[in-house]
Amino acid sequence: MLAVAGIELGWAEAGIRKPGRMDVLLLRIGKGASIAGVFTRNRFCAAPVLVCREHLAAGGEIRALVVNTGNANAGTGAAGLADARATCSAVARLLNCAAEQVLPFSTGVIMESLPMQRLLDGLPQAVQRLAPAHWGEAAEAIMTTDTVPKAASRSAVIDGRPIAVTGIAKGAGMIRPNMATMLGFIATDAAVAPSLWRELTVQVADASFNRITVDGDTSTNDSLILIATGASGIAPIKTADDPRLGALRGTLFEVAQQLAKAIVRDGEGATKFIEIVVAGAGTADEASRVAYSIAHSPLVKTAFFASDPNLGRILAAVGNAGIGDLDQGRVQLHLNDVWVARDGGRHPQYREEDGQRVMKGSEIKVRVELGRGGASATVWTCDLSHDYVSINADYRS
Amino acid sequence: MLAVAGIELGWAEAGIRKPGRMDVLLLRIGKGASIAGVFTRNRFCAAPVLVCREHLAAGGEIRALVVNTGNANAGTGAAGLADARATCSAVARLLNCAAEQVLPFSTGVIMESLPMQRLLDGLPQAVQRLAPAHWGEAAEAIMTTDTVPKAASRSAVIDGRPIAVTGIAKGAGMIRPNMATMLGFIATDAAVAPSLWRELTVQVADASFNRITVDGDTSTNDSLILIATGASGIAPIKTADDPRLGALRGTLFEVAQQLAKAIVRDGEGATKFIEIVVAGAGTADEASRVAYSIAHSPLVKTAFFASDPNLGRILAAVGNAGIGDLDQGRVQLHLNDVWVARDGGRHPQYREEDGQRVMKGSEIKVRVELGRGGASATVWTCDLSHDYVSINADYRS
Repeated sequence: MLAVAGIELGWAEAGIRKPGRMDVLLLRIGKGASIAGVFTRNRFCAAPVLVCREHLAAGGEIRALVVNTGNANAGTGAAGLADARATCSAVARLLNCAAEQVLPFSTGVIMESLPMQRLLDGLPQAVQRLAPAHWGEAAEAIMTTDTVPKAASRSAVIDGRPIAVTGIAKGAGMIRPNMATMLGFIATDAAVAPSLWRELTVQVADASFNRITVDGDTSTNDSLILIATGASGIAPIKTADDPRLGALRGTLFEVAQQLAKAIVRDGEGATKFIEIVVAGAGTADEASRVAYSIAHSPLVKTAFFASDPNLGRILAAVGNAGIGDLDQGRVQLHLNDVWVARDGGRHPQYREEDGQRVMKGSEIKVRVELGRGGASATVWTCDLSHDYVSINADYRS
Repeated sequence: MLAVAGIELGWAEAGIRKPGRMDVLLLRIGKGASIAGVFTRNRFCAAPVLVCREHLAAGGEIRALVVNTGNANAGTGAAGLADARATCSAVARLLNCAAEQVLPFSTGVIMESLPMQRLLDGLPQAVQRLAPAHWGEAAEAIMTTDTVPKAASRSAVIDGRPIAVTGIAKGAGMIRPNMATMLGFIATDAAVAPSLWRELTVQVADASFNRITVDGDTSTNDSLILIATGASGIAPIKTADDPRLGALRGTLFEVAQQLAKAIVRDGEGATKFIEIVVAGAGTADEASRVAYSIAHSPLVKTAFFASDPNLGRILAAVGNAGIGDLDQGRVQLHLNDVWVARDGGRHPQYREEDGQRVMKGSEIKVRVELGRGGASATVWTCDLSHDYVSINADYRS
């Protein structure tokens, strides 16, 4: 994990839900950074999401992020909003900035009130630990039902200087990001003008977190924040036609996609990683709808879990994507290298044992051709296992 | 189970998938009946669904239905279509009618070809058993992963005469009917003009099978057929303002709703029956979207399975229904008699033990008020358990 000049991280064990667990993360940002975020489209969005949007819209320089796990501060009404604001104020006092310069994030159980005293008591501990090397600990501090911390780091060279891109994310269930994942924070020491950085943030979300699903449930707290500290000292990238942008964008995509795929691999109860590519669609939106229809079908997901090549379920999911004029006679289905369905029916040369071989793997690529046009979409997902039910039946106990 | 004058039923053990199981149903219809159907909106609809639509559109008098289980004849291309037509021809020869007067139905595994010889060999056995009293056996003959046969019967009095309404259905998984359920057949000896009967069939589907979901997967084979034989001898009901229509419609709704609810109660792995009522919506469509968003959320469904009052998940599902201008501050949530969330947040008087008490029951009513208008919708669903995963991971083995 490369440190990113201009970023320091510290954590606390505040006992928000359970004692002895890292459950608070503080991320301090140096002066002059560009910061942008994308947030959940769930209309029951959490109080901290509302406050984040407000503080970003205010246009002041953001100097810190504060994250707690164990409680989502969602479905908490006016009291929850006051708690999120009070958290920002407390951080601001400790770091000598204004409350509007702090962005709050929460993740955990919905519709319970945030244990404010414990959270506030934990903050000084987090401040004390602030250091640029703490990305690994930061990834651990934001985990909930995650079984592994999720962090990724790459470097690029811009203007002959090494540029770091490092990010962390959390999430395993309630994952069908509709802007971003549960929580993702990515920072670079490149310098990018704020308006361009905002565009880039949306592009990064669309190429990574907006392509994954575990269970189709969009969280109330999804937030992705990208920070460009500018501390590398390169001249700021200000326009979309700057030739240096390509290298930075590519590196950001790599880090974000690695984090997004890590969430799917750690999907609650997941035993397999599934890539779904839908091609030959009339529009990208149409391709995406078909891909998500497959990715969300419980019958498809349980068949993957069982390694059962019951592949007609994939065709049924294609038929359920809401494309009114789909011609099933033009649909092709491949599983890895195996041509399963040709022109809407079982391929004459398809043999069950070939399907079985592919289904037994832990990484499977589903490719559907619709025969309607040139658009395509890719979605990453996982299977549905007994453990998904166990984890979510027992989540609060 | 009341017999319906003008209807005879017979079954066979044709060994289509496994030997020694009832897997073929033949239903013979007397002359002069009105028949209407609604079918799946899955664009990968099965070959028999295509043939049903064709034969109904041709406008000839339908004289028989033939149903096989064990194989859905879906995703089978041109060969599947030929098989469905050949089945109709074979039935027509045995019953002395034209192939276009027969409607075929299939349910079972997708993307495998129908074992035609076994099906054809079984038909004479089914013809031999044709009798009006066989509704109970007919309900058994169409079962697949169902654990109980589903049949319902009521009588009404019209023009001083007893009128029978009797129906059967099958379905437990791949249930999110979008026109009808997997398979449902309802008959009455009332006399109703064909065009009015078609209207009534759509109303019945919308009030029953179109209100249920088990797993959100719309089947390739959903079909609901309503038959009015007219054999009771009452004068035909020809117009929507006929005062006799109310009693018949009410009885049809009762039978159809009992069958639809029976499918949910027998939902794969289901341990609880959940009624979701969404009121105060701007439009019925909006209410329905919110109800289905709750009913399809794996997180909500696993919480019901665990009897865990983790009720913020219901608010998150409300927020995910795609209503862009939803004001969370106006949302109310009740579970049976317990007021859980008031104005978008936890109700101050809500106590966990009250939620717990309701969640432990096997029948739960969720009531959401959106505070946007006067429209409402009801949806029936079940929980998501370990057994759902087991049943669908092992379906073909």
